[in-house]
Amino acid sequence: MTGKSLDLARAYRVTDGRKFRLERYSASETGPFRSDEDAKAQSLLAGSIDRIADLQEKLYAQDHWAVLLIFQAMDAAGKDSTIKQVMSGINPQGCQVFSFKAPSEEELDHDFLWRTMRCLPERGRIGIFNRSYYEETLVVRVHPEILAHQRLPPELVGKRIWDQRFEDIVAFERYLSRNGVKIIKFFLNVSKAEQKKRFLERLDSPSKNWKFAAGDLKERTRWDDYMAAYEATIRHTAKPFAPWYVVPADNKWYTRLVVASAIVDAMSEMKLQFPRLTDEQREQLELARTQLTQKKRS
Amino acid sequence: MTGKSLDLARAYRVTDGRKFRLERYSASETGPFRSDEDAKAQSLLAGSIDRIADLQEKLYAQDHWAVLLIFQAMDAAGKDSTIKQVMSGINPQGCQVFSFKAPSEEELDHDFLWRTMRCLPERGRIGIFNRSYYEETLVVRVHPEILAHQRLPPELVGKRIWDQRFEDIVAFERYLSRNGVKIIKFFLNVSKAEQKKRFLERLDSPSKNWKFAAGDLKERTRWDDYMAAYEATIRHTAKPFAPWYVVPADNKWYTRLVVASAIVDAMSEMKLQFPRLTDEQREQLELARTQLTQKKRS
Repeated sequence: MTGKSLDLARAYRVTDGRKFRLERYSASETGPFRSDEDAKAQSLLAGSIDRIADLQEKLYAQDHWAVLLIFQAMDAAGKDSTIKQVMSGINPQGCQVFSFKAPSEEELDHDFLWRTMRCLPERGRIGIFNRSYYEETLVVRVHPEILAHQRLPPELVGKRIWDQRFEDIVAFERYLSRNGVKIIKFFLNVSKAEQKKRFLERLDSPSKNWKFAAGDLKERTRWDDYMAAYEATIRHTAKPFAPWYVVPADNKWYTRLVVASAIVDAMSEMKLQFPRLTDEQREQLELARTQLTQKKRS
Repeated sequence: MTGKSLDLARAYRVTDGRKFRLERYSASETGPFRSDEDAKAQSLLAGSIDRIADLQEKLYAQDHWAVLLIFQAMDAAGKDSTIKQVMSGINPQGCQVFSFKAPSEEELDHDFLWRTMRCLPERGRIGIFNRSYYEETLVVRVHPEILAHQRLPPELVGKRIWDQRFEDIVAFERYLSRNGVKIIKFFLNVSKAEQKKRFLERLDSPSKNWKFAAGDLKERTRWDDYMAAYEATIRHTAKPFAPWYVVPADNKWYTRLVVASAIVDAMSEMKLQFPRLTDEQREQLELARTQLTQKKRS
């Protein structure tokens, strides 16, 4: 088991969104694998998780970089389960997950980036945003009436507001990347048919009932508007310093594989390593060893 | 007393920094006034403070905009006393002052904007930053060894880092201005001779001893480097949406007058007003009045 990623994720990576077309990306494909039972697929996931755990230890020890993973998707696309399955092997001390639901009154009283900015990962950590400031160019764009709740000065809400939002987000992510935050963004691309199937499972299975909210069906009626919003978002905000991955999400086992591979790829590029000791530090360690092993005086 | 500002502040305002030259700005001038005893100057300050208090009430009631006042200066230029004198008449519920000293370990573990972002004023409030993220392009630029404490990945600290810092700050302030934060930045421009005088006062007067720190003298030896850093900062970050005021600071009474006038000018432009009631809200008020004045049933 080498933890080699087979370049699985690269096909789904968008680093320059300008010509991005969502329809060119499959929701159902499973790459070189037939099924979850495929032994190669199974060992690949396990290997990738081991690699992430290993890289994360170095990230933490080196204390220079932070990693920010952003997950966006339609309901039932598998955000929660992907985060759970891929990140469960990681030391929780070096990993912080934040979920962003409808904003609170205090959050609405600030600019739209404020609530997520406060939760940015410290150096040495992996931060995970389950939803993020991208809700602004997705949910709020599909439901512009939500903008009114933000109590923005009305004269600032003009025709160009979405272009401004994109420009501001790109500038913010460029700033973060310049300051040691490695950003990786995932759109879990589920099909409308698969979402229907998963909604029915939630209704049928008592242990999944809690995941269903009546409002979810209402959002489903706006499917095409949401797809247009995702396309516009990726088109404007996929950059070399903050790529999007458009991950096939009709098969959860494949989603996890791709997400894990993408994280391995990104963190491998960062040249993470345990800090090297200076000669002085090495001498101090030797001194400590001598003191500890001296006969019974300490 | 009309609270008219006499356009006192405009001469010190920089909205386009590209050709900014610090040497063109006087530290000692006092505009049309001879001295603090000048009756006109006294009533002008009182009038401006009244105006700010009045505008701030509307800002709070309207709850759309926030105002961010940033103060930067050399030691003993009068930041603390200006904030105290100009803002003391304002309802503290609508006003939040944050001072940024040397960053904590937790703050150093984040990007350089993080600690100030968290303190941004809510809508309806005036936020005051006594020092700010501009310390990065002033103190840190004069003392690049401080950059090392930030534990940035070394490969990100290149020749262009200051240009990148300026670009990131401008993008951030543009974002804030688009989201309802009115930014006004003050550089209190004190002369080296006046600083010496004030330092000696701190040494001579027991009630001012606490304000003197030995490190202040050391920074004084880097005076020219600091002036170059201020000039570069203002040149790159003075924009229509985030102007700098280069305020003469050798006479504290005049500093206050100019700062107060600048705040009045900026807030007057914002067309603040008490929210207007809808017909429905007005009916509800009438209903409440009827219920309250009915005979002894409530």
